[in-house]
Amino acid sequence: MPETPPLPTVAPLDEAAVEAAQARWATRAKPPGSLGQLEDVAVRLSGICGQCPPPIVARPAVVVFAGDHGVVADGASAWPSDITGLMVHAMAGEVAAINTFATTVGAEVHLVDVGVAADLTHLEGVRHRKVRPGTDSLTSGPAMTLDDARAAIDVGLDLAAELIADGVDCLVAGDMGIGNTTPSAVLIGRFTGSRADKVTGTGAGLPAERLGSKVAIVDAALERAQAIDDPLTVLAEVGGLEIAAMAGLYIGAASAGVPFIIDGVIAAAAAVTADALVPGTAARGIAGHLSTEPAATVALEHLGLEPLLDLRLRLGEGTGACLAIPLVQAAARALAHMADLPEA
Amino acid sequence: MPETPPLPTVAPLDEAAVEAAQARWATRAKPPGSLGQLEDVAVRLSGICGQCPPPIVARPAVVVFAGDHGVVADGASAWPSDITGLMVHAMAGEVAAINTFATTVGAEVHLVDVGVAADLTHLEGVRHRKVRPGTDSLTSGPAMTLDDARAAIDVGLDLAAELIADGVDCLVAGDMGIGNTTPSAVLIGRFTGSRADKVTGTGAGLPAERLGSKVAIVDAALERAQAIDDPLTVLAEVGGLEIAAMAGLYIGAASAGVPFIIDGVIAAAAAVTADALVPGTAARGIAGHLSTEPAATVALEHLGLEPLLDLRLRLGEGTGACLAIPLVQAAARALAHMADLPEA
Repeated sequence: MPETPPLPTVAPLDEAAVEAAQARWATRAKPPGSLGQLEDVAVRLSGICGQCPPPIVARPAVVVFAGDHGVVADGASAWPSDITGLMVHAMAGEVAAINTFATTVGAEVHLVDVGVAADLTHLEGVRHRKVRPGTDSLTSGPAMTLDDARAAIDVGLDLAAELIADGVDCLVAGDMGIGNTTPSAVLIGRFTGSRADKVTGTGAGLPAERLGSKVAIVDAALERAQAIDDPLTVLAEVGGLEIAAMAGLYIGAASAGVPFIIDGVIAAAAAVTADALVPGTAARGIAGHLSTEPAATVALEHLGLEPLLDLRLRLGEGTGACLAIPLVQAAARALAHMADLPEA
Repeated sequence: MPETPPLPTVAPLDEAAVEAAQARWATRAKPPGSLGQLEDVAVRLSGICGQCPPPIVARPAVVVFAGDHGVVADGASAWPSDITGLMVHAMAGEVAAINTFATTVGAEVHLVDVGVAADLTHLEGVRHRKVRPGTDSLTSGPAMTLDDARAAIDVGLDLAAELIADGVDCLVAGDMGIGNTTPSAVLIGRFTGSRADKVTGTGAGLPAERLGSKVAIVDAALERAQAIDDPLTVLAEVGGLEIAAMAGLYIGAASAGVPFIIDGVIAAAAAVTADALVPGTAARGIAGHLSTEPAATVALEHLGLEPLLDLRLRLGEGTGACLAIPLVQAAARALAHMADLPEA
């Protein structure tokens, strides 16, 4: 049996490009600091891409990874697992929220079945990379095997490599997976050292009276996860297939020097997981928005990332990160094309 | 002498369209409320345009009005008035921040000299509608005459009418005018009933040790403005030419049922002024972003508007509102094109 290759490594940000970007902002035709957070974004982009000014993000892509979760059977979600497959159909038909947002901002959308319970084999417009038809419940044991977790990461790595080779210069990972705020809460709790009640929210509409039992599920899984050192084993124990693939996409982008924009709480869980698997990955991410789920705030603060948008979104699919694409583009274009003070 | 025609009137939001939009969101393929503030924006757009779903904002335009301010001679700004004309040159050369942002989001930019001190007659790419070469200082008496204030409003009304007739379906008013945070603070203080120290900030980089004298200028002008009832007379006494034109653009858009997006503190001053001149105007505006200037928060709260972006911007030119255009477009497109639940 061939040995599994190690995950790619990620270099620190290019400090020379960071300093060049800071110096370039200082001479643009505007009051110093007056572009606020966008100045930080362009500096970060320069460090990620290793050049100043950075590329202007001409071809952004959203990759939506879909997978199901055994924990739904334990009452962790307001919605049945069937919805996952139905929403992949809607995305393939270009009538989900992410399609309308991506059209608005000029981003392409790629759909990947990495672990949907339903059989989507005959659905066109979807990459069929199913590792397994959903995870086992994280309440009673490992959600998946180590091999499954690594295979799902590899799906994300493959997508990053393929799209970057094709010319994509900014990546967004989106998620579709009923029940996935539960594994996300556990992963964020584990990798940030936070308690269950700090990272558990009502997700996509869990009635308030059921929040207590969701916290109990997260708490029990978190206790098991805290006893595990190896990040990949943590991911297999309490994670999800689409979360693993999203982490893989981030690692692939980061190792290639391509920026990625982090969406809501599921994406934040993938980001803390990716950063645990391959340190330095999150430093090459840009936080697109702040989800209303409490774990999103916990994760972004842990990673030292400041979100661009705060619109009370809690939909997933990559929607919030997609809306941040024009902000990232504007930051890059301004640094590249604004006059300097002597010119003006 | 011909009598000045009255300002256009503005109708209340179309309640039937508002209710239709709320009902339409309730059946889209997503958890209820999960698109947060974007749902509110699409509802508002429906009420403004009088139809549900509203148009998807296919042709947004930014109109930058430039004017100078006599108060600069009194030390209210960190920058000399010369910068106003130089920045209009930079905008005409498409190398100012607003040009790079507008290119990013696919908006057109129109430049209007409504009151720049410098002679820009020979500068191409600028609409030459100079009412007068800058205001008099608001510290010592009226900034301009009533006729000048109305003429500047008419410049904005004319631009709105021309662009809407040409097919523009969403308007942003931008500003360029060294010193204009001072009249903006006074106007916002007057129309919201707020004290000088609550509405005065450091603008485009006034050193902290000069803030006290700026507050004193605002306080004295505010006392005069508070003794005036007629909004147009207030505007003439303590306003600015570009602020008057921006107010005119808003009134023109609102009366035509076309949405406008409000930029930072100067735009917020224009919005409270427009709403005082023609009640109902601000209800047809969308707050694009929150400037770091304290008066912006005061004005938006007074108008009951929640900003979409909070990126610590304080540049003006329409930059913050321009960045909100894709968010408004995404909201409109999602409401129009997302599947409903039975379809999904």
